[in-house]
Amino acid sequence: MIRFACDYEEGACPQIMAALAAANMEQHPGYGEDAHCDRARALIKKAIGRPDALVQFLVGGTQTNQTVIAAALRPFQGVIAAQTGHINVHETGAIEATGHKVLALPDPEGKVRAAAVDAYVKDHWADPTHEHMVQPAMVYISHPTEGGLLYSRAELEALRKVCDAHGLYLYLDGARLGYGLVSPETDVSLPDIARLTDAFYIGGTKVGALFGEAVVLLHPALQKDFRYMIKHQGGMLAKGRLLGIQFEQLFTGDLYTRIAKNAVGLAMVLRDALREKGVAFLYESPTNQQFPILPDRVVEALSDRYAFEGWGRVDESHTATRICMSWATKKENVDALLRDLLPLL
Amino acid sequence: MIRFACDYEEGACPQIMAALAAANMEQHPGYGEDAHCDRARALIKKAIGRPDALVQFLVGGTQTNQTVIAAALRPFQGVIAAQTGHINVHETGAIEATGHKVLALPDPEGKVRAAAVDAYVKDHWADPTHEHMVQPAMVYISHPTEGGLLYSRAELEALRKVCDAHGLYLYLDGARLGYGLVSPETDVSLPDIARLTDAFYIGGTKVGALFGEAVVLLHPALQKDFRYMIKHQGGMLAKGRLLGIQFEQLFTGDLYTRIAKNAVGLAMVLRDALREKGVAFLYESPTNQQFPILPDRVVEALSDRYAFEGWGRVDESHTATRICMSWATKKENVDALLRDLLPLL
Amino acid sequence: MIRFACDYEEGACPQIMAALAAANMEQHPGYGEDAHCDRARALIKKAIGRPDALVQFLVGGTQTNQTVIAAALRPFQGVIAAQTGHINVHETGAIEATGHKVLALPDPEGKVRAAAVDAYVKDHWADPTHEHMVQPAMVYISHPTEGGLLYSRAELEALRKVCDAHGLYLYLDGARLGYGLVSPETDVSLPDIARLTDAFYIGGTKVGALFGEAVVLLHPALQKDFRYMIKHQGGMLAKGRLLGIQFEQLFTGDLYTRIAKNAVGLAMVLRDALREKGVAFLYESPTNQQFPILPDRVVEALSDRYAFEGWGRVDESHTATRICMSWATKKENVDALLRDLLPLL
Amino acid sequence: MIRFACDYEEGACPQIMAALAAANMEQHPGYGEDAHCDRARALIKKAIGRPDALVQFLVGGTQTNQTVIAAALRPFQGVIAAQTGHINVHETGAIEATGHKVLALPDPEGKVRAAAVDAYVKDHWADPTHEHMVQPAMVYISHPTEGGLLYSRAELEALRKVCDAHGLYLYLDGARLGYGLVSPETDVSLPDIARLTDAFYIGGTKVGALFGEAVVLLHPALQKDFRYMIKHQGGMLAKGRLLGIQFEQLFTGDLYTRIAKNAVGLAMVLRDALREKGVAFLYESPTNQQFPILPDRVVEALSDRYAFEGWGRVDESHTATRICMSWATKKENVDALLRDLLPLL
Repeated sequence: MIRFACDYEEGACPQIMAALAAANMEQHPGYGEDAHCDRARALIKKAIGRPDALVQFLVGGTQTNQTVIAAALRPFQGVIAAQTGHINVHETGAIEATGHKVLALPDPEGKVRAAAVDAYVKDHWADPTHEHMVQPAMVYISHPTEGGLLYSRAELEALRKVCDAHGLYLYLDGARLGYGLVSPETDVSLPDIARLTDAFYIGGTKVGALFGEAVVLLHPALQKDFRYMIKHQGGMLAKGRLLGIQFEQLFTGDLYTRIAKNAVGLAMVLRDALREKGVAFLYESPTNQQFPILPDRVVEALSDRYAFEGWGRVDESHTATRICMSWATKKENVDALLRDLLPLL
Repeated sequence: MIRFACDYEEGACPQIMAALAAANMEQHPGYGEDAHCDRARALIKKAIGRPDALVQFLVGGTQTNQTVIAAALRPFQGVIAAQTGHINVHETGAIEATGHKVLALPDPEGKVRAAAVDAYVKDHWADPTHEHMVQPAMVYISHPTEGGLLYSRAELEALRKVCDAHGLYLYLDGARLGYGLVSPETDVSLPDIARLTDAFYIGGTKVGALFGEAVVLLHPALQKDFRYMIKHQGGMLAKGRLLGIQFEQLFTGDLYTRIAKNAVGLAMVLRDALREKGVAFLYESPTNQQFPILPDRVVEALSDRYAFEGWGRVDESHTATRICMSWATKKENVDALLRDLLPLL
Repeated sequence: MIRFACDYEEGACPQIMAALAAANMEQHPGYGEDAHCDRARALIKKAIGRPDALVQFLVGGTQTNQTVIAAALRPFQGVIAAQTGHINVHETGAIEATGHKVLALPDPEGKVRAAAVDAYVKDHWADPTHEHMVQPAMVYISHPTEGGLLYSRAELEALRKVCDAHGLYLYLDGARLGYGLVSPETDVSLPDIARLTDAFYIGGTKVGALFGEAVVLLHPALQKDFRYMIKHQGGMLAKGRLLGIQFEQLFTGDLYTRIAKNAVGLAMVLRDALREKGVAFLYESPTNQQFPILPDRVVEALSDRYAFEGWGRVDESHTATRICMSWATKKENVDALLRDLLPLL
Repeated sequence: MIRFACDYEEGACPQIMAALAAANMEQHPGYGEDAHCDRARALIKKAIGRPDALVQFLVGGTQTNQTVIAAALRPFQGVIAAQTGHINVHETGAIEATGHKVLALPDPEGKVRAAAVDAYVKDHWADPTHEHMVQPAMVYISHPTEGGLLYSRAELEALRKVCDAHGLYLYLDGARLGYGLVSPETDVSLPDIARLTDAFYIGGTKVGALFGEAVVLLHPALQKDFRYMIKHQGGMLAKGRLLGIQFEQLFTGDLYTRIAKNAVGLAMVLRDALREKGVAFLYESPTNQQFPILPDRVVEALSDRYAFEGWGRVDESHTATRICMSWATKKENVDALLRDLLPLL
C-alpha cells in the first residue's frame, strides 16, 4: 500500500532525526527554556524579519489554534473563519472548549474574504441588539487553506486593512505553510505574513518535523504571558528542547522550504498529468494537496494499492478525492500512481 | 554544570531513539491508529493484566490529567487531591480550564488518605446546603507523589474501598510510575494499580521516552468516546505512531522498569550517603527524587557546578532541595556530587 | 409611543402581582425548596401528564438553555439547532461559554427537520474522521420558533423518532410556549410536548410572569443532580419562592393559556388586516409575533408613534419587521396601529 | 416556626412592592435600557460619589461574582479569596465554571489580609516556575464577610495598596453591604468603597429587594463591553426594568440603609443579651448575622419553634449557629427567641 492520505504519514526528515540523535544526551532545562529553543527562535525571527516577535513552540495544530485564540479573545468574543475552516470543522470543538464561538462565513473556495468580513462586522455593530450576539474580534485564515489554496498578497493586505478598520486580530494557521511558500503560484513570503498578521504559526508536523509548530506572536497584547496560556491549555512540552532542535534544523540552510519543494513539485506533476486527461478538481490547488474529481470506479480500482481520502461526493458517479504529497513523498510512488491511474481515465 | 534539576533533562533512552530512527520512513495512518500503537496497547494490556482496558497515548502529563478528569466529571463535580498535588499547584489551572474545581485536602506527606476522603465526602452529603458546594466525584493521587512517596497496596485498597462506598472514580497520575514500581520499598505492582483504579497513566516523559504518557482507562464509562475527548482538548498527536513506537519499546523486555532501576538505585546511594551524615529530608522518598534539607551555604557552594531545585525554605539557614535521578543519570555524576557535597556537611 | 417591539415590555399579569404581594411577608426557605414551588411543580406535572417529571424554575431563557444543554452533553458533544435558532444567534455565545458547539442547520423557515437531522448524524458517523468533529448529541428546537412558526405533532414525532434512532436528546425551548399552545393552527398540546421531548421549558417571562421559566426534565439522566447544575451556572435564585408563586398562578385556572389567547387573537387581527391589503410576511406565523414586510416609507412614517423591530432588509425599498403582541397588549393599541398603518399601504 | 435561617426569607420591603405594582403596566424596552434603570444608575453614582462608574444590574450574587471575575481575568489568572470566601465554598464551582481557579488563603477570621496577599503574590513571582502556577490577578473580599465581619477603612486601604503594587484588581462582594454600612462599628462608607475598589456590588437580594444586585465597575478595563459579558454568562434579565425600579427605590431617601438598620439593631440586641449570659461567638460580628456557640441541648430545644442554621460543630456538646436578622425581622420575634433561649443557658 502506497499512502497519499495525508502529509504526515512518515516520521521526520533525516536532518532532524540526526539532530535529535546528536543532542540526545545533552542536559537541558525543560519547557522551552533551553539553548536549542533560543537558537531556533533567533533563526525564525531573522527569517521573518521581525526581531520584536515572540516565538513559542507547541506540539500540534489544534492545540496551537485553541491556545492562540483563547489568549486573544475576551470571553464573549468570537473568531471569524471560513465555514470549511479547520477550527470550524475538524477540531472537535476545541475552540468552543475554551468558550468561544467560531463565526463561520460561507465561501465557495473556503477562503475568508475581506469584503465578507467587513460586511459581517459592520452588520454586527449596526444591529441595535449586538450585545446579544457574539462579538467578532479575530479573523482566522489558513494558508494554504484546507483545500490547498493560497491567499495573494493583495488579499492578505485587504484582510489586514479590514481588521485594522474594525479592531480585529488577524491570525494565520500555517499548518502547511512551507507548501504555500514554495508554490510556483504565490507572491506571499514569510516576511509578508509577519508584516500582515498579528499571529501565525509555522507548521512543522506536516512539513518535515516529527511534530511541532512554531507560533509567532507579533501583536504585543498577544505576547504578554503567552507561556502561562500554553501551560493552562495543557500544551507545554516538558522536553521543549525537542521542538527547539527541530526548528533549529528547519531554519538552517533553508531546509524548511527546500523539503517543501519536493512535495509541491510532485503535486504539480500529478496535477498536470490529470489536467491533461481532462480531470476536474474540487479546488485549483497550487500546493501539495490535490483534489481531483475521479470516477468512483477509478477510486475503487486504486483502493487496494493506494491510500487517499474521499473529500465529498460530487455526483452519482464521481467523488472528490484528496491526494497529498509531502517532504517525504518519493517520485517513484507518484510515477506508479500515475501509471496505474491514467489508463483508467 | 551537572543537572539534577528534574527527571527530563535528557532525550530518550537509546532503544527508543533507535526504534524511532528505524521506523522513520514507514508510512502509517495518523492519530494513534497505526500498527505500532496497536502493538504497544497489546503489550501494556498484557503487562497490567487487564485485557478489557482501553489504552490511549498522550503527549504530556498536564494534558493527560485535564483530559481524563474532564472526561470523567459532570460540570458541577470536582476532583479531590492532596493540597500539594500536581493538579492543584503546578498546572496553571489546567483542570479549572475545563470547569472543574480541585478539592484540596491538606496532608503533611502530601498523600490522599482514605479516611480524609471518607470524612470529606460524608460531610459534603450531610450538609443540607450540599447543592451549593462542588460535588466530589473523583480522587486524584500521584504515585509516586510529588514528594517521591509511595502508596502501599493497603492504602490503595483503602482508597478503592472509600471510592466504591461513595461512587467516586479513583485516578492515579503515574508521571513517575516506573520509579515507583522498582522502589525497594514498594509492595504495589502494575497489575495492582490496574485492579484498584478506574484510570491511571504510565508516564513516559520522565521514564525514558522522548515524550508521551500511556493512559489506561479501566472503567467503561471513562472508555466511551475517549478519543473525542482527546481531540476536543487539543491533545491528539497527528503522528500518533511516535507514541506507539516508544511504548512498544518501553514494554518490550522490561525496558520500562529496567531503566527506572538506574534512577532509584542512584537515588538510594545519595540518600544513604546523606543520611549517614545526619542530613534530614523533607520527604522520606524511596524513589528517584530526593529532598534533602541542606544548609544554605552548601546549596550556595554547589550552585555553580550542580543544578537542582529549591523546594521551600525550612528555617533561616536551611533549604529543602530536590535532587532528581533519572534513567539517564550517570553514576559518575552522582559520585562527583557526593564528593563535593559530603565534605561541606 | 406605543410599543410592539417585544413581548416583555410590561411587568406581570395582575393575578401574579397580587399573589406576590399577598405572599410578600411569608417566611420561606430559599432556593426553590418552599411550599409555593412545590405546589407549582405539582400543578405543572398534572398539566403535562407526567408525574415522573422533574420541574425546576429558572430566571431567564438564555440561562435555562445553557444550563439544560451543559447538563446533558459531554464536553465534546454539540447541539443541533436551526441556523436562526436563538442559541445560535442571540445568546452571545452562552452555549459556547459552557464548551459546546452549536451545530447549525440551515432551513428557509428556521425549523429543524427530522430528515436534516438524520442526514447530518448519519454523515457524522459515516465519516472515518468523525472523532475530529463535534459529536451531535442533542436537538434543540424552539416552539414557537424565533419566527413565530409551530411544529406540528407529526413533525415532533418525526424528530422524536430520529432522536431515538441516533441516541440524541430532544430539547424544546418554550420561551413563548403559551402563544404556541393557543394558536388556532396548532395540533400540539402540552402533554404532547411532555411525551415527545426529553426536556423543555415553559416560558413565563414572555407569557405573563414578571420573569421566570419552568424547566421540565423528563429523561432520568437529565434529572440527576440538576440543581447542582443550576447553581454551578450561577442560576439559582435565592428567593426561589418568587418563581413558585408565579407558576402557581399561571397553572391555576388555565391562566397561562388564557392570557396567551389575548396575544394570539390580536396577532391574528393584525395578520388578517395586513393580508387583506396584500402585505407579504417573512414567516407565516400563527402566533403572537408577526413579520410583515413593509415599505421603508411606511416603517419610517410609523416610527415616531410605534416601536417595533426591523428583522432584516428584503429588498431596496422593503424591510421585514417584527410586531409582537403579548398577554398585555391592548386591543385599542392594535386598532390604533392599523388605523395609522393601513392607509399607508 | 419563626425563621432566622437567612436574610432572604421574605419578599421585598413595601416601598419596592408598591413601586413594582405602580410601574407594572408601563411599557419599557428590555435588558436594562429603560428609564428606571437609568435613574437608578444616576442615584447610585451620586451615592457613591463616582460619576465615572458603570452601574449594571444583575439578578443574584453568584452570577454577579462569576460575571465580574470572568470579565476581569485572562484565562490563566486566578482570584485570591479567603478560604471561607463565598466563591471558594458556596457557589458550586461557578468561578471554576468560567475557567478560573480560586486561590484560597486561610485566615482565622475569614478575612483577606493585605500582608497575606503581598506574601502570596511575591512568592508567586519569585518562583522560577511561576508560569506553572495560576497567576494571581484579583483579590475578592466580602464586606461584611461570610462571618459577618467588617473590613476597616485602614484594612481596605492596605488592600488597595497591595493591589496597586502588584497589579491586582480589588473586587468587593457586597451581598450584605447595607448591613455593613450601618453597623455601629464600621468606619467604611459607600464612597470609601467606591474609591478603594475596582469593582463591587451593592446587594439587593438580602437587603430589602425582591432580588437583584447593582454592580459598580470603576476600573475602565472592567467597564468595557461588560453588558456582552452579562449576556454571555446567561445573566441578562429580559425585564431589566424590575431591577431598575427596585434600586431606584433603595437609593431614594436612604431606604437602603434605613431598612438595614432594623436588622443590625436587632442583631445587636441579640448579641448583647447572649454576651451578658456568657455565650461565646464564632465570629464577633457587628452586623446582621450572629454566630453564637450554643449547647446542643439548647439548639435541640429551640428547633421546633425557630429555624436557624448550624455553622459547624465546636466541641462534643456545642455547635456554632448562625442567626440572621434582616430588614424584615420583627422585634417581637427576636423578643420571643430571647424569651425562650435565655432561660436555657
